[in-house]
Amino acid sequence: MGWGDLGAFGEPSKETPNLDQMASEGMLFLDFYTANPLCSPSRAALLTGRLPVRNGFYTTNAHARNAYTPQDIVGGIPDSELLLPELLKKAGYINKIIGKWHLGHRPQFHPLKHGFDEWFGSPNCHFGPFDNRALPNIPVYRDWEMIGRYYEDFKIDLKTGEANLTQIYLQEALDFISKQQASQQPFFLYWAIDATHAPVYASKHFLGTSQRGLYGDAVREIDDSIGKILKHLQKLGISENTLVFFTSDNGAALISAPKQGGSNGPFLCGKQTTFEGGMREPAIAWWPGHIPAGGVSHQLGNVMDLFTTGLSLAGLQPPSDRQIDGIDLLPAMLQGKLIDRPIFYYRGNEMMAVRVGLYKAHYWTWSNSWEEFSKGIDFCPGQNVSGVTTHIQEEHTTLPLLFHLGRDPGEKYPLSFASDEYQRAMERISVVVQEHKETMVPGEPQLNVCDKAVM
Amino acid sequence: MGWGDLGAFGEPSKETPNLDQMASEGMLFLDFYTANPLCSPSRAALLTGRLPVRNGFYTTNAHARNAYTPQDIVGGIPDSELLLPELLKKAGYINKIIGKWHLGHRPQFHPLKHGFDEWFGSPNCHFGPFDNRALPNIPVYRDWEMIGRYYEDFKIDLKTGEANLTQIYLQEALDFISKQQASQQPFFLYWAIDATHAPVYASKHFLGTSQRGLYGDAVREIDDSIGKILKHLQKLGISENTLVFFTSDNGAALISAPKQGGSNGPFLCGKQTTFEGGMREPAIAWWPGHIPAGGVSHQLGNVMDLFTTGLSLAGLQPPSDRQIDGIDLLPAMLQGKLIDRPIFYYRGNEMMAVRVGLYKAHYWTWSNSWEEFSKGIDFCPGQNVSGVTTHIQEEHTTLPLLFHLGRDPGEKYPLSFASDEYQRAMERISVVVQEHKETMVPGEPQLNVCDKAVM
Repeated sequence: MGWGDLGAFGEPSKETPNLDQMASEGMLFLDFYTANPLCSPSRAALLTGRLPVRNGFYTTNAHARNAYTPQDIVGGIPDSELLLPELLKKAGYINKIIGKWHLGHRPQFHPLKHGFDEWFGSPNCHFGPFDNRALPNIPVYRDWEMIGRYYEDFKIDLKTGEANLTQIYLQEALDFISKQQASQQPFFLYWAIDATHAPVYASKHFLGTSQRGLYGDAVREIDDSIGKILKHLQKLGISENTLVFFTSDNGAALISAPKQGGSNGPFLCGKQTTFEGGMREPAIAWWPGHIPAGGVSHQLGNVMDLFTTGLSLAGLQPPSDRQIDGIDLLPAMLQGKLIDRPIFYYRGNEMMAVRVGLYKAHYWTWSNSWEEFSKGIDFCPGQNVSGVTTHIQEEHTTLPLLFHLGRDPGEKYPLSFASDEYQRAMERISVVVQEHKETMVPGEPQLNVCDKAVM
Repeated sequence: MGWGDLGAFGEPSKETPNLDQMASEGMLFLDFYTANPLCSPSRAALLTGRLPVRNGFYTTNAHARNAYTPQDIVGGIPDSELLLPELLKKAGYINKIIGKWHLGHRPQFHPLKHGFDEWFGSPNCHFGPFDNRALPNIPVYRDWEMIGRYYEDFKIDLKTGEANLTQIYLQEALDFISKQQASQQPFFLYWAIDATHAPVYASKHFLGTSQRGLYGDAVREIDDSIGKILKHLQKLGISENTLVFFTSDNGAALISAPKQGGSNGPFLCGKQTTFEGGMREPAIAWWPGHIPAGGVSHQLGNVMDLFTTGLSLAGLQPPSDRQIDGIDLLPAMLQGKLIDRPIFYYRGNEMMAVRVGLYKAHYWTWSNSWEEFSKGIDFCPGQNVSGVTTHIQEEHTTLPLLFHLGRDPGEKYPLSFASDEYQRAMERISVVVQEHKETMVPGEPQLNVCDKAVM
């Protein structure tokens, strides 16, 4: 999903009443980011509190190349990484992942080896259907057991767009919450459903209900599901003991638009890019009785903060033997504080841009290659900002392109290099970048493609 | 202002708490339009309930040429047109216009000759400062009297961006409302302030308070003023007898961006164009005790509807001797009904596009001329949809470009001419357009430029 896919964030059909209500009962984060404009690295960052370039979720196959974990990638989350559920166990938490894992599919990467107690879902997206000879369909697991495959045992009808997956994942969530409430055990539920990823689907009840077509139907089903989860927490009387955070792992995939792609609102480009449309995410925090209703925060936030905030809620400290990029958002959520921190926009192994305050400096610009673009692959359909949405990797490291995201959220008007404003802002940003680069120790890259025979 | 300038419509800084609250206490109209993407014709349409091509607010100087009423235009609102305040008088209403009239500056066009009882404001925008020899500064009137001029008696500091105009216009509104409440007379207040038109200004208290720069400061001052007007109505105990409607006369002027221009959210292009960004407007209806709080309407609405709705509220019928394009929105506001009606997108003398349901058919596409564009005048900065945002006037009357605004609010993906969906939608639209064209009787054009000596 993209920043602009929710009514509360200005989607013109305004079809997300439950998420909008969640926002009005909780806090909207308007300046919340992912750590990478692609799925696997974003999720690895969320669960480790660390940038993908540290936890290994990147590739050195090419400069600024995005990468994730399709079937032919042998890498995954290293044992040396400490995941949120592993740490929460120390505080007695029961941890469940429902949906997409995306941190590697080989045995050593299994979520139950990395702190989760339960899993219902798949290691990957629901791409397919595949032929099941050369290429198998994506498996679905219950805990250690593979219980079926997408398209075979878990039906997805690409013709009608019908699939029950979100309903199945919803029921899993409700059941888990009930069980935890009954046993009085604290829990961490990572509800990582794979809708609205293409190929888009919705269950029968939601098909044809949106102004936005099938993609909108899928959004409506997610919205409805989240409403049911929140109501369930309230019904069980544990809503005041439960922080719920809604966000997305990357911007809307505009390459799938209009039929299968969402909206990044007023922002530039989408998934795969380090423009705002690729990395700024819808985000809502909900915790009745603790987070003030109807709050709005301009705290610069990141999915990695959920790691640190989660530990904080459990009374735990983040690991001190490694660099943690996430910060504790509780002061922002509970007291409305604004914590000064930068946002780094990585694409693969390159820091493409950085945000400090309202300023964003691009050290590299790139949408995609001319070769891809000429084949119709477009990460910025209908958008073209000269010298910004470039189709070659343009380096600006000596003189970064600077934007003021308040006056120019769409990244259309780079500030004049000669202006005082540019000089002042870049002085501040340069210090942040220099420190970041000097202390950066990249992890072993996990997402390289190597010899097919080996793989 | 543009559709995307309000927090409730997804502006990322979310700096309009009063308008957002107005929306949460009233009804958001998400599919509300102006009758023309430029000031004068839009306002003439609002006050007459008729398309500019009928009431004369267009030019035949060139095809699809936008026009308004600068000092060298001698035309204005014809005596034959019936304005909302003229008609409301029959029901005992006292009518006041505060701010910009824009319906002609010669004596016969004075607002007090067209139904208004009071006027405080100017016949035109606050362009300037002019030299006051060859070209005078724009005058400001109190009723019949010219009481000063912008920049001279009503200061606007273009260097600091400071001007008290919105505060002056606010005080006029509060005083008028108090007076009407005291005298127990029904009233129509047309609060047509000229902020946020470029050159943008705000009063001292608001300068530097926005994340969005001076434009945002101006928006914040408007937001604050509207909050004060609503509170004033409540304090006087007349809020349940008063419908308040907020909207704008055209989309944000992207040519003034980023320092002086606003946001049209996810929509294409801006002011001057018949793309959604030029004509879809933010709109909120507020009437405590009558309009359900927190309502959202997808009724296709138009500024011309305020004419018909205003008459309806006063128990009056619209004139039967002429074509009225506005409809009564009370069923939409009070009972949540959806009334089937088209939206026509005119640019000057040409019907460029039409919306029926969620479909929008472009019969002509044009952003602006290559000549203007090559000089840096850009109505669609950063946006470029091949074959859509054209720099020549492209005719599609035999095979209109068709968009589905639910799936594709940004007008980026024309439907395939060969598709069943195209055929079905165009069958329905063609009937609407044929009827519209057959019954169209254009008014005498008022906005033609003629011989300088005559003018």
